[in-house]
Amino acid sequence: MNGRQMKLGMSIWRHGYHVAAWRLPEVPADSMMNVRRFIDVARAAERGKFDLVFMADVLGSHYIEDEDRSKTRGHTVVKNDPLQILAAIAVSTSNIGLVSTISTTYAHPYTAARAFATLDQISGGRAGWNIVTSYNMEEARNFGLSAPADTATRYERAFEFIEVAKGLWDSWEDDAFPVDKERGIYVDRSKLHVLKHTGKHFSVRGPLDVPRSPQGQPVLITAGDSDSAKELAGRYASIAYAGQPQLHLAAAYYRAVKERAVANGRSADDVKVLPGIMAYVGRTEAEARAKMEKAQDLVLPEVGLAMLKPFFGDLSAYDINDPMPLDVETLSSNWNKSDFSKMLIERARDEKLTIRDMYRILAVGEDWHISMAGTPEQIVDRMEEWFFGGAADGFNVQPPDTPGGVDDFVDLVVPELQRRGLFRKEYEGTTLRDSLGIARPKHPAA
Amino acid sequence: MNGRQMKLGMSIWRHGYHVAAWRLPEVPADSMMNVRRFIDVARAAERGKFDLVFMADVLGSHYIEDEDRSKTRGHTVVKNDPLQILAAIAVSTSNIGLVSTISTTYAHPYTAARAFATLDQISGGRAGWNIVTSYNMEEARNFGLSAPADTATRYERAFEFIEVAKGLWDSWEDDAFPVDKERGIYVDRSKLHVLKHTGKHFSVRGPLDVPRSPQGQPVLITAGDSDSAKELAGRYASIAYAGQPQLHLAAAYYRAVKERAVANGRSADDVKVLPGIMAYVGRTEAEARAKMEKAQDLVLPEVGLAMLKPFFGDLSAYDINDPMPLDVETLSSNWNKSDFSKMLIERARDEKLTIRDMYRILAVGEDWHISMAGTPEQIVDRMEEWFFGGAADGFNVQPPDTPGGVDDFVDLVVPELQRRGLFRKEYEGTTLRDSLGIARPKHPAA
Repeated sequence: MNGRQMKLGMSIWRHGYHVAAWRLPEVPADSMMNVRRFIDVARAAERGKFDLVFMADVLGSHYIEDEDRSKTRGHTVVKNDPLQILAAIAVSTSNIGLVSTISTTYAHPYTAARAFATLDQISGGRAGWNIVTSYNMEEARNFGLSAPADTATRYERAFEFIEVAKGLWDSWEDDAFPVDKERGIYVDRSKLHVLKHTGKHFSVRGPLDVPRSPQGQPVLITAGDSDSAKELAGRYASIAYAGQPQLHLAAAYYRAVKERAVANGRSADDVKVLPGIMAYVGRTEAEARAKMEKAQDLVLPEVGLAMLKPFFGDLSAYDINDPMPLDVETLSSNWNKSDFSKMLIERARDEKLTIRDMYRILAVGEDWHISMAGTPEQIVDRMEEWFFGGAADGFNVQPPDTPGGVDDFVDLVVPELQRRGLFRKEYEGTTLRDSLGIARPKHPAA
Repeated sequence: MNGRQMKLGMSIWRHGYHVAAWRLPEVPADSMMNVRRFIDVARAAERGKFDLVFMADVLGSHYIEDEDRSKTRGHTVVKNDPLQILAAIAVSTSNIGLVSTISTTYAHPYTAARAFATLDQISGGRAGWNIVTSYNMEEARNFGLSAPADTATRYERAFEFIEVAKGLWDSWEDDAFPVDKERGIYVDRSKLHVLKHTGKHFSVRGPLDVPRSPQGQPVLITAGDSDSAKELAGRYASIAYAGQPQLHLAAAYYRAVKERAVANGRSADDVKVLPGIMAYVGRTEAEARAKMEKAQDLVLPEVGLAMLKPFFGDLSAYDINDPMPLDVETLSSNWNKSDFSKMLIERARDEKLTIRDMYRILAVGEDWHISMAGTPEQIVDRMEEWFFGGAADGFNVQPPDTPGGVDDFVDLVVPELQRRGLFRKEYEGTTLRDSLGIARPKHPAA
């Protein structure tokens, strides 16, 4: 044991990450409507000493108007504002980090800076901001556009947005509020710094109406494989989520992000790269596989075909038990998914996969994270392989179902990680920065 | 007792409404930074069976760059995002309504509709939206403007904003989410209604990505004495906050709002008018007055002079124990405050007030709500006078300090109201609409 330990995040995506998780009898029907479900999951993750819980977000009902896509995404078309969920979790937990998505494309930096400063304040220093740009048609149409802006414009706005937010977070020095009752001095105006930002996308005077927060600056997190996304990660992020399903691809992403960090004058260790992992955990491999099969058997054929469509087109003329047609054209324009669909065709040939086999591969998300079923030992072996193989500083755990998949990871996998010295047994402190081992930034005037 | 009962809201404005409340030894120094303080106050209000707690909001550090004004407002320049505070309160209470301010001037209707639908969802139907337009310079400058928009433009945007939000809240019929695990039907797309709004200020396609919330539509609340504000109250609001310090003025406002409700096809009873009241409560009048004097003695002369300045100009050449100069020009352009400043000059003449006397009148907010010190009987007498005098359907309680002023009202005044049959002893139901006696609106397609 060299002392290097993993960082672990828990994605709290209502029913879980398996496409049919919501149909499992043990998954509560109100998983996406009842804040208590999220609180329970966060408490379980905190019991497992996780660094953070993470809420993804999209500002719209994704795919609802597309009949095919809505078959695969119907259980995700409604949700709640993640910041309110995390505020409720904040007062129901004590150590775990709280990461929400806010889009730089449709939010305003004053409002966003205020939201994360507030979350950091009320949680005692546990806020993280997952920075995204919004490229979905649904979101664009909810915010007055006929189509999303192009990548360059979105990232240009994102970079300025982040600078404004960071500036606003330093509106007040740490000791700007003496609250001196005796002398009647609440605020020390000499500790005020008015931002006066004027840029291409925003003019924001400041100051922010929230004091400098416990972490000084909330933790910044991002994802994405484009050059702009990697530059953003390298320049600002303390965590970069990786979306590669194979070690060699994840390792390339890992290296690229670290290089960008160094190129921006930071240390390679300042940004932690966390690939996703969705694991069915069992005391035996057979038990784990049985859990996975139970969910897989709940994938309706029409849902399976709808999942295959973006990769291979319409296969509804076939029987799902037919062999996967090998001459099918792969459709996805995304490099990763396109490579992946070619790889799937090869695998279909080698393993003689049926159409049904093929959509079950997608149902467990093999296209975008580590997906496996196994014992704690097997799962930790795989995590170690990535951790020591230059592809991961830890993982973003995407439970196949909630709360069962969360409890399984916490109660079975975490102890094995701890036994091998790969994960903390107690929190290092009370803030997300403490957990990540990232220093609290000094105020520029200090 | 004719059965008509008062509606009561509790404003949770950190240290309390007295300008020097924060200096009181018993008021926690972290009142504005610690979410637990707000939760405690909300729980106390719920113990008192209050209809709701209310959080005001301004998207900026009000007056911080004006040295004079910042003397009077220094304790209000930093705060937190009220929706997160209310989300934390939601999971810490069970019956009390949760009202947050969101400005229609700088928010976006999709985001605002989502925020209130979420708060309604996670609180089980207790959300209310205090609709404001933003007229402060500080807010304008934080959102890219050199000055606030004029009243007409702000209200034009507000009306469209509200229509969009209301439309988005009806994106889904109440039974749009069968979550039928057996048949694999999560969403019933025939219950989807896509808004497709295109207007002068906004284009918002929808649907909202939150199900129809427990109240169907969160409760709408507003304030303001302009024609536009009264029209907005009459057309949409279930509660209108009144800001008149005298019964005859409040009664005129009360009548005007009710008339607007009727003119908009609603019943006069559909909108509850709640003037503000700040009361020091004692078991004896002397005890109540002593509490008030304790706070009054903490008003620094420089703060007092800064408070007088907008009404009477700079009086710093005088000694604060000098008689109030009677030839002083009254400066305020606001009709209400201008009337009020003339009235104060008359009172200064009749009662031979000093400058110090004068600023103590402002320190307890006599210019904008009922302000008094008395026994529960005296306070309820005054409330009855307004309630039966055609000026109030209840009150927005503005505690002079927290948590003491909250506890005093709950433990001393509420029992007297209940004894007289003027206030509930138990909640009528679990939603804010239940408390207010306002029906849950049916979905337009139902």
